[in-house]
Amino acid sequence: MTVLPPLDRIPADILSAADYEQRAADHISPPTLAWLAGGSGTEQTLRANRHAFDDVRIQPRLLNDFSTASTRVELCGTSLEHPILLAPLGHQRLLHSDAESASARAAAATGCGFVSSTLSSLSLEDIADITVAPKWFQLYFQPRRSDTLALLRRAEAAGYQAIVVTLDTPVQPLSRRAQVADFRFPSDLPPTNLSGFAPPEQVTLEPGQSIVLHGMMSEAPRWSDLAWLLEHSRLPIIAKGALHPGDALKMRDLGVTGVVVSNHGGRALDGSASTLAALPRLRAALGADYPLLMDGGIRSGTDIFKALACGADAVLVGRLQGYALAVAGALGVAHMLKLLRDELELCMALAGTPALADITADCVTGEARC
Amino acid sequence: MTVLPPLDRIPADILSAADYEQRAADHISPPTLAWLAGGSGTEQTLRANRHAFDDVRIQPRLLNDFSTASTRVELCGTSLEHPILLAPLGHQRLLHSDAESASARAAAATGCGFVSSTLSSLSLEDIADITVAPKWFQLYFQPRRSDTLALLRRAEAAGYQAIVVTLDTPVQPLSRRAQVADFRFPSDLPPTNLSGFAPPEQVTLEPGQSIVLHGMMSEAPRWSDLAWLLEHSRLPIIAKGALHPGDALKMRDLGVTGVVVSNHGGRALDGSASTLAALPRLRAALGADYPLLMDGGIRSGTDIFKALACGADAVLVGRLQGYALAVAGALGVAHMLKLLRDELELCMALAGTPALADITADCVTGEARC
Amino acid sequence: MTVLPPLDRIPADILSAADYEQRAADHISPPTLAWLAGGSGTEQTLRANRHAFDDVRIQPRLLNDFSTASTRVELCGTSLEHPILLAPLGHQRLLHSDAESASARAAAATGCGFVSSTLSSLSLEDIADITVAPKWFQLYFQPRRSDTLALLRRAEAAGYQAIVVTLDTPVQPLSRRAQVADFRFPSDLPPTNLSGFAPPEQVTLEPGQSIVLHGMMSEAPRWSDLAWLLEHSRLPIIAKGALHPGDALKMRDLGVTGVVVSNHGGRALDGSASTLAALPRLRAALGADYPLLMDGGIRSGTDIFKALACGADAVLVGRLQGYALAVAGALGVAHMLKLLRDELELCMALAGTPALADITADCVTGEARC
Amino acid sequence: MTVLPPLDRIPADILSAADYEQRAADHISPPTLAWLAGGSGTEQTLRANRHAFDDVRIQPRLLNDFSTASTRVELCGTSLEHPILLAPLGHQRLLHSDAESASARAAAATGCGFVSSTLSSLSLEDIADITVAPKWFQLYFQPRRSDTLALLRRAEAAGYQAIVVTLDTPVQPLSRRAQVADFRFPSDLPPTNLSGFAPPEQVTLEPGQSIVLHGMMSEAPRWSDLAWLLEHSRLPIIAKGALHPGDALKMRDLGVTGVVVSNHGGRALDGSASTLAALPRLRAALGADYPLLMDGGIRSGTDIFKALACGADAVLVGRLQGYALAVAGALGVAHMLKLLRDELELCMALAGTPALADITADCVTGEARC
Repeated sequence: MTVLPPLDRIPADILSAADYEQRAADHISPPTLAWLAGGSGTEQTLRANRHAFDDVRIQPRLLNDFSTASTRVELCGTSLEHPILLAPLGHQRLLHSDAESASARAAAATGCGFVSSTLSSLSLEDIADITVAPKWFQLYFQPRRSDTLALLRRAEAAGYQAIVVTLDTPVQPLSRRAQVADFRFPSDLPPTNLSGFAPPEQVTLEPGQSIVLHGMMSEAPRWSDLAWLLEHSRLPIIAKGALHPGDALKMRDLGVTGVVVSNHGGRALDGSASTLAALPRLRAALGADYPLLMDGGIRSGTDIFKALACGADAVLVGRLQGYALAVAGALGVAHMLKLLRDELELCMALAGTPALADITADCVTGEARC
Repeated sequence: MTVLPPLDRIPADILSAADYEQRAADHISPPTLAWLAGGSGTEQTLRANRHAFDDVRIQPRLLNDFSTASTRVELCGTSLEHPILLAPLGHQRLLHSDAESASARAAAATGCGFVSSTLSSLSLEDIADITVAPKWFQLYFQPRRSDTLALLRRAEAAGYQAIVVTLDTPVQPLSRRAQVADFRFPSDLPPTNLSGFAPPEQVTLEPGQSIVLHGMMSEAPRWSDLAWLLEHSRLPIIAKGALHPGDALKMRDLGVTGVVVSNHGGRALDGSASTLAALPRLRAALGADYPLLMDGGIRSGTDIFKALACGADAVLVGRLQGYALAVAGALGVAHMLKLLRDELELCMALAGTPALADITADCVTGEARC
Repeated sequence: MTVLPPLDRIPADILSAADYEQRAADHISPPTLAWLAGGSGTEQTLRANRHAFDDVRIQPRLLNDFSTASTRVELCGTSLEHPILLAPLGHQRLLHSDAESASARAAAATGCGFVSSTLSSLSLEDIADITVAPKWFQLYFQPRRSDTLALLRRAEAAGYQAIVVTLDTPVQPLSRRAQVADFRFPSDLPPTNLSGFAPPEQVTLEPGQSIVLHGMMSEAPRWSDLAWLLEHSRLPIIAKGALHPGDALKMRDLGVTGVVVSNHGGRALDGSASTLAALPRLRAALGADYPLLMDGGIRSGTDIFKALACGADAVLVGRLQGYALAVAGALGVAHMLKLLRDELELCMALAGTPALADITADCVTGEARC
Repeated sequence: MTVLPPLDRIPADILSAADYEQRAADHISPPTLAWLAGGSGTEQTLRANRHAFDDVRIQPRLLNDFSTASTRVELCGTSLEHPILLAPLGHQRLLHSDAESASARAAAATGCGFVSSTLSSLSLEDIADITVAPKWFQLYFQPRRSDTLALLRRAEAAGYQAIVVTLDTPVQPLSRRAQVADFRFPSDLPPTNLSGFAPPEQVTLEPGQSIVLHGMMSEAPRWSDLAWLLEHSRLPIIAKGALHPGDALKMRDLGVTGVVVSNHGGRALDGSASTLAALPRLRAALGADYPLLMDGGIRSGTDIFKALACGADAVLVGRLQGYALAVAGALGVAHMLKLLRDELELCMALAGTPALADITADCVTGEARC
């Protein structure tokens, strides 16, 4: 099977944003596709994220006035034309030689928020230079606080508007699909942002201690690290990965500006609840006004509408971004984002909701089961 | 694959109304079939309309007296022999050269109500002349109120007994199936009723405005348009497309005579609730006596029984009409309607309900989930 | 495909009662199999009857004393060794040349109750002579009360112990499977019991009257007919076909001795609730002591256990009877009944319920959904 | 199809404990595989045990401190490094020539509890000698109390720490799969532990008595036998097979130390509830502190986590043990147990629960349906 090079035009048979998923299989090598598309474990959470959308149905309203309609949203101090952000997808050079340069330019071209990954192929400064899109920096806690602080300061200096700290992968579980396909990160493509950092100190385990629980987890961030980050950041902190209302409440009370309901796209804990099922619980706990984003399973504008009705203020798009990037670079990502926004607007028009604030729980029936 | 011409007899292997669906595939070209059979988006609502009937089961009654049994219903001032109407299906020339002449005659032959579409291939006057069936005119708001008023006056003059104003497609979403099959409306078959109307004024968008939300939706009808229509019509107004109880209540309070619970057969908002799931909510809101019709997924007399038990007073049949028309013209539609009525009567006999008023929520268990 | 003659031995690969279903396909001609196996309409009730058993699970008890264990049950004045009766299956000559002679002898050999059909191939007197099994006579109301009375008196004279009056098929719906297979009752095999009866009077319909509602239903039994029967019968009357608690209560109050929860094995109203789902509602309405039987979907002793836990006192077996009869005549039916009883006893042993009275709602979790 | 001999190394493509299931098919003869993999009856409980895990989803917690993390659990007087025990799987010589010598050594190597079966291929004394793992002896009541007492005393003498008395198979139902595959226990491999025992006395049935209810069940243990065992044992008694809260409460009140929620891996009563569905009911009845174990359907560390969240203190692994044993003997079982423990620890890390006591009902949403 030959892997086709990326296109420099939009394929004529792409009719919806979701179409990039199937098309991408022609433009990504099987091991890399396994890495991008797969989930951890038996992929029960990966599937749940998608199936959850089937359990929710829209109750449209009729005859409403759209003369002042808008998809605009203010979120954690950032103003977005529409409630779609590109999720922090690392290692984009694996998908297209333009890497984040392509996706960041596509975000700018379509008024989409861009969340730059700690593990980006290009440096966070280069990405910030390239794009005028509203941009946030996704931060992984580093083994050394000095390194974490360095990343934070660089992001502040480069003009990022918020920090999205990812908390749901204290350990990185393996994707069976990627293992079977023998996927490995190429040794010549290290994450640029981390290039100056010394390797983490070797953990010495005492007899009877567990590699996972005491080895790997010894570097995992804790509540005290989050408090430390909040203390040192000049930017709003958004916490990514919460699924339990208790955690989200604790974050809010600590001073976190917003929360991303996420299970890492089914790549963290296999068996965790779908994000759409978790959303109403978190919205109920946090109250109507607290900024709440979600990712996981978004493939269409209708999915976005349902996520908003279930409690989200905006969504992040990960895999679709990767698929469109591989198919046609910046053009592909921009086209995918345009389709997604058109689909959301069509859904809003047909659902009779001229503003995002009109997309409430009253707009849907049913609920995602798990 | 050859498309067979319509038959001039009933095929021997049609045993139930639903059989016309499969048979129609032989008599309709693939693009036209894609247009007729397909739904918008990913067709989740198209599927939901059908699956909803599986969630509802009948609790039959025994030993009741049928000596005065009847399927008769008075609805919005129209007297119907049975609670089945032909839905407003436009462009019928695509399916049979006799177009609405065939379906309207079939309605008359079987005591079925006929709802003539704004987008009919024949003029509303020609259709009215052809048939003695109880007939209503389906109205789409036109960009200019003068054109809407002209259609209304013509319908009144032609003897239609009610106006069914369709409100669920302020924007017409695309059917993926029709796009893939490259379906296009033939340029030589424009909707006759609209032939004298000037094209709509060009909408000029300001920078940052959306083609969907501010362009297409600028022509969409609003509550004030419905109020205007109610003020100007000499005929009862029936509103088609409501799924939310709040909208239905508002319509009733404005003076609308009846409501059709509809999602445009899964051709409007993909992701909207099935009509069978929405029915009990609307019936509960509107009370027992308000005229409530439904369409969406009806394929058998048992489906009609379930719809009535869930709150409908009558149903409209769209796709089955088109399928039967393509298979055998007026004869096919009349046969399909006869089968449907026989099936309903058989269901009533076996369920022990001699009159439509006996078909209540107590006759069913379970409820359509979404 | 050749139809094999019935066997005169038990096939070695029959390991459970349910195995007769698949095996029967070798010994029954396709049209006859379609008649026996098929259900009315789209067979949603036929399927529901089976699937309902999947929704119910057993909570076994441990360590109970079985020294006085028993499957014996007293039912409507009849003493049964175990709670299994052969359902009134007509036209058994279609399945085996021994017809009811085989099934009635098999019932006697296995201590099983036998319900003889009005439409049996052998006369009710011949059947009564052949078997020492506890026997009831299934009665269809005839168009003329004198004929109904004649059947009743003959059943009384022949020694039947109860009358099972079937009420769920005022009209006989068609089985699509049987229609497609072109099944017809052979003209040389009329129902013997009815041979002396004059054909029903021709019904004359007035204009506008319905063949179903006013034609066929003019002969359907009514509550007054049931009252008449109760008045004239010297035997207990058991009403078969109730699914609605209101009907069952009315029957009890009229003097009916017991009720069979039945949807005619999915051959009457397609779309009606499964019998297992209806059972708890009827048991709750009728109280703990009223005799309640069920049929529909029984394929194993575990199914019988679940039916009893959901409220039945005994079950009737229709299709399995026909399958076993076709495979190996009296020997087949006796073997099938023995397997069924063994399976029930094994289930009782493993569920820790030494007597039928121990099989209560507390023994199961979940409930049949519809 | 050739049956491959067991390996003396770990196959490279085993990535998770569950992988041993598929791989085992190469190393076990079809009849033996049918015996090991199959369930009783129609295998509805076998399937339910697995499917139940899909109904439960994890709500992970973030940022918790793992510095004192541990999987250690004290259970019925036995201290276990992690909450995994090898279930009492008899006849292990059928799977590998090393039989229980392999599995018992693997348990020791991985800190796993070992439950030795009454029906082991090696004698209970030999097994006790071979392994330093925490070990319990699984006891079947014998027809003669003297034989039961002999087994008990031998287990006490051999150093077992608890007695697991299995109560859910008063009768051993047949596995259809094993019957079809013509599986028979080889005559040269009798259960060593029972070799000195006289055959059970022949039961003489009176006329009308049932082979199952009065024959086989005459030897089944009763509550009085359990009371007798409690009186005579010097070791804690753990009762295996409870699914009904009433039974579990009665056992606790009699003095039983702990309960194993079990349906014998779907090999006892087909149709019984899944163990995961039964767990919360038993935990609710017994209170938070009573020792509760479960088996049935465990294939991964995530399954173990869900079982613990639903109320279990530990789990037993039966089929995976057999599969790994057949694939690679002691090495296979040890590897499977290591994978299972790693998976549990990964799940705990990602779910934010540093100790088993943190794995509560609050960690999951949804519940196993049946």
